Amino acid sequence: MAVIINLDQEREKEQPDALTRLCDLVQDDLENVNRLIIENMHSPVELIPQLAGHIIAAGGKRLRPVLTLAAAQMCGYHGQRHAALAACVEFIHTATLLHDDVVDESTLRRGEASANVLWGNKASVLVGDFLFSRAFQLMVADGNLRVLEILSAASAIIAEGEVLQLMTSNDTATSEQAYLEVIMGKTAALFAAACEVGAVVADRPKKEHEALGSYGMNLGIAFQLIDDALDYSAKQENLGKTIGDDFREGKITLPVILAFLRGDESERDFWRRTLERQEQDDADLRQAIQLMERHGTLKDTVQRAAHYGAIARDALGIFPDSAEKRALTDVVEFVIRRGH
Amino acid sequence: MAVIINLDQEREKEQPDALTRLCDLVQDDLENVNRLIIENMHSPVELIPQLAGHIIAAGGKRLRPVLTLAAAQMCGYHGQRHAALAACVEFIHTATLLHDDVVDESTLRRGEASANVLWGNKASVLVGDFLFSRAFQLMVADGNLRVLEILSAASAIIAEGEVLQLMTSNDTATSEQAYLEVIMGKTAALFAAACEVGAVVADRPKKEHEALGSYGMNLGIAFQLIDDALDYSAKQENLGKTIGDDFREGKITLPVILAFLRGDESERDFWRRTLERQEQDDADLRQAIQLMERHGTLKDTVQRAAHYGAIARDALGIFPDSAEKRALTDVVEFVIRRGH
Repeated sequence: MAVIINLDQEREKEQPDALTRLCDLVQDDLENVNRLIIENMHSPVELIPQLAGHIIAAGGKRLRPVLTLAAAQMCGYHGQRHAALAACVEFIHTATLLHDDVVDESTLRRGEASANVLWGNKASVLVGDFLFSRAFQLMVADGNLRVLEILSAASAIIAEGEVLQLMTSNDTATSEQAYLEVIMGKTAALFAAACEVGAVVADRPKKEHEALGSYGMNLGIAFQLIDDALDYSAKQENLGKTIGDDFREGKITLPVILAFLRGDESERDFWRRTLERQEQDDADLRQAIQLMERHGTLKDTVQRAAHYGAIARDALGIFPDSAEKRALTDVVEFVIRRGH
Repeated sequence: MAVIINLDQEREKEQPDALTRLCDLVQDDLENVNRLIIENMHSPVELIPQLAGHIIAAGGKRLRPVLTLAAAQMCGYHGQRHAALAACVEFIHTATLLHDDVVDESTLRRGEASANVLWGNKASVLVGDFLFSRAFQLMVADGNLRVLEILSAASAIIAEGEVLQLMTSNDTATSEQAYLEVIMGKTAALFAAACEVGAVVADRPKKEHEALGSYGMNLGIAFQLIDDALDYSAKQENLGKTIGDDFREGKITLPVILAFLRGDESERDFWRRTLERQEQDDADLRQAIQLMERHGTLKDTVQRAAHYGAIARDALGIFPDSAEKRALTDVVEFVIRRGH
């Protein structure tokens, strides 16, 4: 038995997951990105690097900047500009996280107390504004207008998605289409921009910009769908997150939308009570998960994610084979597998 | 007597105030700016134009965009690009107002219920983010990297100023220097950028950029000093605003800083109780104003404003005489006179 376990461990060592492989491919550049992030969140106003450092150091996966780096590298880019642009992408992402946590009244972010809890909502709003402005300063220093166009448009679309989410929050009658528009805005638009920027900085033809934009958009949709499924899945707890956050906040995500659509009137009353009126007791989360299992809505949410994942993979079809292309392709599966 | 009154009315008609004269000089362009503002706050997410329209229509003075238009016109600019850039400046300003009202927990803005009261803090944060992103999209569409540099730097400085203000709020030991840094960030940086952009768009030499930047920075400092004095002045009520908002919020502005520095220990206890611990009763605002009058701190705040105003006026010295230069010069006096 000991031998088998060792072999398993050996195999795990030999086969790092797709995200790890992708990160390894851009490792040096990623270190540059981390350095640029630290340098550029500096301000004589001490609270800014303190608060920004807390959320940035909390160690997200850096998925979005890694996508920028890998996309540029797949496009044959050999310069250094992509590191600054990847840092911009992470700054925009971090700014939206700070504002999200205020809007959602969240108390935890990646298992640690969120910035709004530690420093208050006011500081979170203002430091978010600072990071967002600093992202634009970094982009302007790079000086590519197409990059500025892509990232400023993405920022506006993110804000639109967030407002749309706010308007549909607690509304159990939200349609799957409306939900898709929300997640395309709040999540997928930045994935798309992060990837497209890689092709722009490498000065590749327009069809490659579009291909990478489509890859990022569909990967982002899949990513958010899986995130929303995981919020009701025991697997979530293995990732160091709590289960049921969306439920407690009354967020209307696809697992809920499908359960509502497929449920009978008494089930719909349950969703209206718990999510619209937010009258919840301890047993309700368990009941919600049971209804989702009865109607197969978690499984089907993963299925929907697989559909967008397939589009993402195919979008890469125009690029010749390379280690980067293989890793970007495999990352799609990795993102979706989190949901199993 | 009737004759005298008529003559007074007649004289008022004949001598519009300096801001009105400045607006008249750029009237057509200002109409373009207003049109661009309406067009660009559009979004399929209805709440965005609703909320943005509320604060934008509430009819600020459009002072910042007028400065951009007038500065460009003084620099001999005859194109149309300055209107879009002036709209950007107003969008950035509006975004910061939305976030300010959330941070300050304000309930009124220009005499009307503020957006955060009508639509909630969450919507105000997110629509602010949208307007800010949209401002950058407009700038990027213009395509001048120097303009982008100026306005993205100003945005970062505004956020720094706001965070600094948050850190010094309720601290009666705030120094005049720290207060100056706050208002240079939160207010004057955008005045400076608005003016400098006028010279950039007109493609004038660097010393004219700097001159207009200095004019705007010092005008902005004067503007904020007067605002802070007016918050304790009966004249404020003539302007349709309530008196004592800063006092109730525990904001540490120059009239307070000077009163604290010049006061005896029992007076300092009064400031600590009312502004640091925010234990206030109905008679306290009256008492605060009496202390300010005793130490001449409102008068001296206006005096400080006059100093920065003088620097602003002299900064225009390198420009040849023109109707725009005269109006920009006279606007300084107009801004300061509000405080008398």
